[in-house]
Amino acid sequence: MSENFGDRLAQTVRAKRSTVCVGLDPRVASLPNGLLESMKPSQAQAADAYRRFSCAIIDVVADLVPIVKPQVAFFEQLGAPGMQALADTIKYAVDRGLLVIADAKRNDIGTTAEAYAAAFLGRGEQSAWGSDSVTVSPYLGDDSLQPFVDRCKATDSGLFVLVKTSNPGSGFIQDLKIDSQSISQRIANWVQNESKSQIGTSGYGPIGAVVGATYPEELEELRARMPNAWLLIPGYGAQGGGAKDVVAAFQKDGLGAVVNNSRGIIFAHASAKYRHHADWQRAVEAATRDMIDDLRAESPAL
Amino acid sequence: MSENFGDRLAQTVRAKRSTVCVGLDPRVASLPNGLLESMKPSQAQAADAYRRFSCAIIDVVADLVPIVKPQVAFFEQLGAPGMQALADTIKYAVDRGLLVIADAKRNDIGTTAEAYAAAFLGRGEQSAWGSDSVTVSPYLGDDSLQPFVDRCKATDSGLFVLVKTSNPGSGFIQDLKIDSQSISQRIANWVQNESKSQIGTSGYGPIGAVVGATYPEELEELRARMPNAWLLIPGYGAQGGGAKDVVAAFQKDGLGAVVNNSRGIIFAHASAKYRHHADWQRAVEAATRDMIDDLRAESPAL
Repeated sequence: MSENFGDRLAQTVRAKRSTVCVGLDPRVASLPNGLLESMKPSQAQAADAYRRFSCAIIDVVADLVPIVKPQVAFFEQLGAPGMQALADTIKYAVDRGLLVIADAKRNDIGTTAEAYAAAFLGRGEQSAWGSDSVTVSPYLGDDSLQPFVDRCKATDSGLFVLVKTSNPGSGFIQDLKIDSQSISQRIANWVQNESKSQIGTSGYGPIGAVVGATYPEELEELRARMPNAWLLIPGYGAQGGGAKDVVAAFQKDGLGAVVNNSRGIIFAHASAKYRHHADWQRAVEAATRDMIDDLRAESPAL
Repeated sequence: MSENFGDRLAQTVRAKRSTVCVGLDPRVASLPNGLLESMKPSQAQAADAYRRFSCAIIDVVADLVPIVKPQVAFFEQLGAPGMQALADTIKYAVDRGLLVIADAKRNDIGTTAEAYAAAFLGRGEQSAWGSDSVTVSPYLGDDSLQPFVDRCKATDSGLFVLVKTSNPGSGFIQDLKIDSQSISQRIANWVQNESKSQIGTSGYGPIGAVVGATYPEELEELRARMPNAWLLIPGYGAQGGGAKDVVAAFQKDGLGAVVNNSRGIIFAHASAKYRHHADWQRAVEAATRDMIDDLRAESPAL
C-alpha cells in the first residue's frame, strides 16, 4: 500500500462494508479461561497470553472489520516483554490485511516528537512498531504535531489527534472557551486544515481526530467542522454510547468515522448476551457482527 | 525508600548539593565513537549501544546529581529491544541510588490511565519500568490525572504534569486565557492543590510540574503559584535557557526545582568547550560539574 492514509481507510471501509474498529485492550483479569495458567503470571507469561489473545481476535475479525486499535498502555504495563507482544500483534494484524491504529496518545517537542513519529508511523517494515497510524495529544502545541504530519506525508500514514475525549472530565481543558470557541473546536480547526492540505481522492486526508461518542452534540458540531478528516470514535458500548449517538459521525458518503469497541467485543464471552457461545472466539465474532449491523443501519450508504 | 516523593527529592538534592537532572536522550547519530560499529545498526545493535551509553553516563553522574530523566521516545524508536534497554537503564540508575523520571508524557482515561500509572510509578520492583516518577499530559482532564495521583500515594512516587513547555509553539493551547487566567495557570492550580494535599515534611508534595526555562516571566509566575510543588525545568542549554533564566524556579530554601540538561551533558564530547577531554565520559563529567556550579551560584542556599 502506498497511498494517502485517508484513501486507504476509505477503500478498506468500503470493501468490508464496516466502520467498526476493534480495540485490543488485553487485561490479565479478563482473559478467557485457558490463556493463562496462573492469575499471578510473570511479565513474560502475561505478555505471551496477550499475544495469543490478540492474534486470536485478529483471526476472527480480519475479514469483518477495516481496522484494529491496540491500546499500548496495557502492553506497556508488562514491561519490555509486553512491548514485544505489541510488536508481534501489530505485525500479525498487518499481515492479515488490517489497518492498525497504535493508541499511544504520544507527543513531545522537536526531535523527540520526530522520534515518536518514526516509532509509530509507517506500515510494516517502515517503522519500529509497524502501525499505520497513531493517536497524539495536542497540549504541547501545533509545532509538536508538525513532525507527525510530516511523517504521515512521507510514509502514507495517519494521525488521530485528541479533540474531544469520551471521559467525564474531558471538559476540564477541552470545553474551555476563548472568544466563544472551545479548545476542542480550535484543535478541530487545525485538524481540518492539515487534513485538507493532504486531501486524497476519497475526499479525506490523513489527519484525523478523536471525538467521543459520549457527547453527541459536540460530535455533530465537530463532524461539520472537519469535513475532510476521519474521526475515531471511542465511547461506544462499555462507555455508554450507542449507534444512535454515533450516527452524527458519518457523512453523506457513509464514511468519515470508525467507531471503536474494545471490551464489548474482546470480552464478549463474559457478557450475558454472548456467554452462551461454545467458545470465546465465537462470542467475539457474534459481538462484532452485531455491532457492524447496528452501525450499518445508521449508515445505509455502506 | 518509603517516603513521600517530594521529601525524597528534597533529601537527595540537599545531599548532593545539586539541582541538575541529567537527561538520557541517546541518538544513533550522536553517540561517541566506539559504541556502534555501523552507522546503520539493527534495532538490537542500537539498543545495546543505548544501554551501554546510558549506563556509562550514570557511572559518571551518580555521585554528582540527584536525578536522571531517560527520554522514552528514543528508546521506543528502537522497538521492543529499545524498551528492554530502557528497563535496564532505569534499573541501573536505581541501583546506583539515583532518582528516575521516566519522560514519557503519557496519559489516557480511566483504567487505561491506571495501566500507565502502574507501568511507570513505583521504584525498582514496584512497577514494570521501575521509575520513581513520570511526566504526564493534562489534555484529557483532571479525571485522567487522578489514577496517577492515587498511584503516587500508594507507591511514594512522583508526577510531573506538563504546565508550560519550552517549545516555541507551547502557547498554542497553554497561553490561551479564560477570565484572565491561562490554561497553564489553571493546570498549575490543580498541581498545587494536589501536591499540597499530599505534602511531606520538606514542604513539598509528590505532584510536580514541567515549566520551561525558555519563558522566564511565566516561570516566575508559575513558581509562585505552586509553592508546594517541585518543578522540572527543561530548556536549559541546547534549547537556549541559561542559569539566569532558571533562578526564578528556586524557592528561598534553595529547593523547588530540578533543571534538566540532555544534549549539553551527554553529548558534551562533541562541543567546542569539552572536546579536548581524553575520553567522552570525562567530557560528560566536566559539563555536569560546570552546570552544577552554574546553578549553585544562583541558588546559594545549597
